[in-house]
Amino acid sequence: MTGKVWLVGGGPGDPDLITVKGLRLLEDADVIVVDRLGPRALLDTLPRVLSGQTPVIDVGKQPGHHPVRQAEINEILVEQALAGRKVVRLKGGDPYVLGRGGEEVAACVAAGIPVEVVPGVTSAVSVPAAAGIPLTHRGVARAFTVISGHDDVSGLLGGVPGGPEHTVVLLMAIAGLSHTAWALVAGGRSEDTPVAIVEDGYGPRQRTTIATLGTVAQVAAEAGVRNPAVVVVGDVVTLAPDWVGEVAGGTRLWATPQPA
Amino acid sequence: MTGKVWLVGGGPGDPDLITVKGLRLLEDADVIVVDRLGPRALLDTLPRVLSGQTPVIDVGKQPGHHPVRQAEINEILVEQALAGRKVVRLKGGDPYVLGRGGEEVAACVAAGIPVEVVPGVTSAVSVPAAAGIPLTHRGVARAFTVISGHDDVSGLLGGVPGGPEHTVVLLMAIAGLSHTAWALVAGGRSEDTPVAIVEDGYGPRQRTTIATLGTVAQVAAEAGVRNPAVVVVGDVVTLAPDWVGEVAGGTRLWATPQPA
Ligand SMILES: C[S@@+](CC[C@H](N)C(=O)[O-])C[C@H]1O[C@@H](n2cnc3c(N)ncnc32)[C@H](O)[C@@H]1O
Ligand SMILES: C[S@@+](CC[C@H](N)C(=O)[O-])C[C@H]1O[C@@H](n2cnc3c(N)ncnc32)[C@H](O)[C@@H]1O
Repeated sequence: MTGKVWLVGGGPGDPDLITVKGLRLLEDADVIVVDRLGPRALLDTLPRVLSGQTPVIDVGKQPGHHPVRQAEINEILVEQALAGRKVVRLKGGDPYVLGRGGEEVAACVAAGIPVEVVPGVTSAVSVPAAAGIPLTHRGVARAFTVISGHDDVSGLLGGVPGGPEHTVVLLMAIAGLSHTAWALVAGGRSEDTPVAIVEDGYGPRQRTTIATLGTVAQVAAEAGVRNPAVVVVGDVVTLAPDWVGEVAGGTRLWATPQPA
Repeated sequence: MTGKVWLVGGGPGDPDLITVKGLRLLEDADVIVVDRLGPRALLDTLPRVLSGQTPVIDVGKQPGHHPVRQAEINEILVEQALAGRKVVRLKGGDPYVLGRGGEEVAACVAAGIPVEVVPGVTSAVSVPAAAGIPLTHRGVARAFTVISGHDDVSGLLGGVPGGPEHTVVLLMAIAGLSHTAWALVAGGRSEDTPVAIVEDGYGPRQRTTIATLGTVAQVAAEAGVRNPAVVVVGDVVTLAPDWVGEVAGGTRLWATPQPA
């Protein structure tokens, strides 16, 4: 009998931020296929993993090591399911937010394998929250755009709404940060637009670095900012407890340490 | 001693799509303050709620009934915490996605009350997924914008990138749907742009209605589309199993029923 594949959104890394459904599927899996991001610490708490009953296949792209190509990951999922197993593909954040989940679903569908997507807490929303930054806030921003800074984003960025009412959230944006900041300014955003870089949200290295579009390239280089990180652009950044600059209108809305 | 307020993202409604942390906080709460959306079914499974030990305060806006004003909700949170209680404010989706979570945090901070935000699975991402629609997909869309259709969005929509590479997700968009669709076309999107309306994601009334920007107002009216619903605009809609029209390039990427 053919097995089944579940694409499980594991959340931003904190093992307690996976969903109840995702945890239950992990506990019950015949095999688990994991990423570099996502709540890997969780695996060491699963009885069937600890006893060796449930093998864990690591397809995570470790920096400096040869990454497993997407096509190979797809093949692994299909092969394991064809062998009749309950396959849990644990992904960072949500499977459908810049996570190539759709490609894995398509591969399963093409092979005639039942597949289900279990949504998760995306880093795009939750990592800013870990730094005290809401993506929307009455009177500050009522919309947000999530984009990848990894490939060439200049075409998209030119069209991102320019006003303070629109928050921009960049994933995979550290390498291209100076280019991206420049493109946002070229697209009509003020150089004074606040920017927050939140590294390793919910992890031991969590850190928030605050700058503006005009200064962020230099500030990030000086601070030695590293992946994984979420970059937030827009006035909502002034709501963060780490915000130290001037605020438009002179009103600082709040500042409180957010417990991790 | 002062208590504490936790703003817990309850996910899109399926009780299993709350986070492990959120569930634990609910189980341990002295008082729970609930919304209309969010996993209310969950409350009937909590031993301390069933025994009457943990009171549930309902501030949900029932259609046709007088809604509790935001200022009153804030006061309730502050009062309950000042009485020394562990207050869980259960919210639909994620607290920081068009959920007025920031205002509740600000009220607590102003009153000197410890407050923590626990992120959740937002309906903006997970309700499209329930209908088989990924917000991003290689070669189809690599960015998305989440906006409210509730207030006047025409200013924002004019600036939303016009290409097929950008998905638009509208919350609270049923009442203003014809205006919003018109504004997107006026802003440069083709009338043929695919649109999906996903009602009551993960609930008993879940239903997907497919149209285009040019037809959606009429199609939605004929289908009697109702709140709550998430509206997705962009080529990713062609990836849904419910998609029945032509696809640009002639290639249908996949179609599979997604188990609920
Ligand atoms: C390939 S994308 C996948 C995103 C994922 N599907 C999601 O919904 O969160 C990986 C990027 O997510 C962001 N990210 C994920 N987890 C993070 C964390 N704990 N802290 C900071 N950034 C994180 C970083 O921008 C990273 O480069
Ligand atoms: C006030 S907004 C709050 C959004 C919430 N904070 C979140 O992150 O999902 C409420 C809107 O979310 C959407 N929504 C929430 N749950 C939904 C569900 N189960 N099915 C469809 N739409 C839903 C609808 O557009 C609804 O009008």
